[in-house]
Amino acid sequence: MDSPLIVLYRAYLECLNSQAWEELSRYIDTHIAYNGEVIGLDAYRQARKDEFRSIPDLYFNVKLLVANEKVVACRLDFTISPMGDFLGLPVNGQSISFSENVFYEYEAGKIVRVWSLLDRAAIERQVSRP
Amino acid sequence: MDSPLIVLYRAYLECLNSQAWEELSRYIDTHIAYNGEVIGLDAYRQARKDEFRSIPDLYFNVKLLVANEKVVACRLDFTISPMGDFLGLPVNGQSISFSENVFYEYEAGKIVRVWSLLDRAAIERQVSRP
Repeated sequence: MDSPLIVLYRAYLECLNSQAWEELSRYIDTHIAYNGEVIGLDAYRQARKDEFRSIPDLYFNVKLLVANEKVVACRLDFTISPMGDFLGLPVNGQSISFSENVFYEYEAGKIVRVWSLLDRAAIERQVSRP
Repeated sequence: MDSPLIVLYRAYLECLNSQAWEELSRYIDTHIAYNGEVIGLDAYRQARKDEFRSIPDLYFNVKLLVANEKVVACRLDFTISPMGDFLGLPVNGQSISFSENVFYEYEAGKIVRVWSLLDRAAIERQVSRP
């Protein structure tokens, strides 16, 4: 049976994938930190909104998902077509596939710390060089 | 209580940290795949040996650890001093700190697939530029 955090985390991804921004505060703590930097819920929401604006086909696909009572770990697979630059690489609408290995620390049912690493090297290999 | 895979995974890290190479086959499948490529146990062992040779102070520190019956997810913290280049960066013995977000898929009690991402950007920020 799925642990409570797995259910909660899948609901968070569904919230992102459906761009239900008004519901994001159910899943994300007010003082959320991203890769060691406290950015807060508003900046976190804005960053996700900006991503969907520059990546119209953004979708979070779960490849591997593990959780205990406090931490969720997920390997996410993406096949997306970012406009312009992405991670400093000139993607310009090309379809790229890559993964993210990400850990989420929960407190009181909300994500308080995200530790994310993206496979930028995979994207480098796919981006057409001039 | 720790799940059986957590116990097994911690023993694997202890095997690495103590460079007990003859015991590695207890933890790693003969046909192990690393980031999607089947490399096999011998090449996997050799790669780890080579790392310890070029990084004399290599040590695997667990920051976050989660597991279910089939998958282990770990965020590992490193503070190490690689000789020469590391990930294509001129580290040359400088002490660097970075993390790895890594997933391990187990079958029959051994790791069959590793999905690893290293925080190369963190190292880039630390390496002294000429």
